[in-house]
Amino acid sequence: MASLYLIPVPLGPVSPDACLPPDTLAVARRLEHFVVERAKTARAHLKAMGHPQPIQALQIEELNEHTPAAAIPALLAPLKAGHDVGLLSEAGCPAVADPGAALVLAAHRANIPVVPLIGPSSILLALMASGLGGQRFAFHGYLPAKEPERSQSIRELEKTARRDRATQLFIETPYRSVALLDALASALAPDTLISVGADLSLPGQLIQTRSAKAWRGQTDAVKDRLVVFGIGIGV
Amino acid sequence: MASLYLIPVPLGPVSPDACLPPDTLAVARRLEHFVVERAKTARAHLKAMGHPQPIQALQIEELNEHTPAAAIPALLAPLKAGHDVGLLSEAGCPAVADPGAALVLAAHRANIPVVPLIGPSSILLALMASGLGGQRFAFHGYLPAKEPERSQSIRELEKTARRDRATQLFIETPYRSVALLDALASALAPDTLISVGADLSLPGQLIQTRSAKAWRGQTDAVKDRLVVFGIGIGV
Repeated sequence: MASLYLIPVPLGPVSPDACLPPDTLAVARRLEHFVVERAKTARAHLKAMGHPQPIQALQIEELNEHTPAAAIPALLAPLKAGHDVGLLSEAGCPAVADPGAALVLAAHRANIPVVPLIGPSSILLALMASGLGGQRFAFHGYLPAKEPERSQSIRELEKTARRDRATQLFIETPYRSVALLDALASALAPDTLISVGADLSLPGQLIQTRSAKAWRGQTDAVKDRLVVFGIGIGV
Repeated sequence: MASLYLIPVPLGPVSPDACLPPDTLAVARRLEHFVVERAKTARAHLKAMGHPQPIQALQIEELNEHTPAAAIPALLAPLKAGHDVGLLSEAGCPAVADPGAALVLAAHRANIPVVPLIGPSSILLALMASGLGGQRFAFHGYLPAKEPERSQSIRELEKTARRDRATQLFIETPYRSVALLDALASALAPDTLISVGADLSLPGQLIQTRSAKAWRGQTDAVKDRLVVFGIGIGV
């Protein structure tokens, strides 16, 4: 029976041969049908992964924030016709923080086997590298961009981190990273820990965990970087 | 400057060559100093990863639930002497749901660079494969084993999943998996979705997402399996 393969891709401009397991690459190279967040990026990923066929000969359909829910069942057509399909995100693991999860759920509903493959996840790399512990943790996506909502949300997360001993993770767009780190450093208790994971698995990777107090005045380090932030109290 | 490398290992008895990226294997094979959850398993992992040196010649220190907090700074000694150190868990990614995070935090406090490497994580594979979405999600470790606390905790998680549109993940020991899935199927609203990810990335992998109602009477599927469970409302 045809399966829906969830194929991770590199987190930036590095060689897939170095950062993806051979099993993941082998599946990506074998498939001829793909559902992807953006066709242009996906073609570049498949080419870099050494797909043996002319990239323009592959069947590539898009699934992104513009795709109406009603269009999703049609994306399962190749699977129903017996062809394996690969799902790719713009970067990292598909069906986590992208619209691909809707296709995975549709596959489950149609009794189509789903096979997740191994590869890089900025969220998981940030969690490992933080030292804040993952016995319990939560990922919140983006925090509110405006005050006072942002600082209120930060203090809520700090309360949860202390009460549940759970690391709280979230992201920010590069141009707002310094503003968020400033807000964290001033809204959190001085000894609460803040972890920063920027450009993970890429050249120039920045990984630092410090107390809120120690980050004050040092927040330019994350300027214009894609950061996964964490807060916690340590293990 | 010497770095602390976080080295993922396979999730079970499969070849590291197939499921780990070449970069991860290259670091593991190059290092001579390791901090590991259990020395015996770590030696087997390093041998399977093709470490070129006699395994008994490597310096392997243990860090696990029996290690007193006071013993952790001494584990940084090779790093301070200029040797790179690799941190290994029993399975999957280190410093997530194991005691290794304490060493990572100690490294940050000593200004020692921390480098997370790419590899398999059962939590992340389960999240991707669930189709429940990871725009927001939380991992809770183990739920209470006894009633009525277990069902109470299940209903709390369902409330959070609906309110925050956040997938809620948790694990259970193999001999209690059926009991937990029974409790989920009966405590949750009939249309709440339950995902099961068992023996992920291994032969015999089981991946299924169904409504609570559809799981009723079908829970033997997870008997004696190591399962990452998820609950959510879909995307």
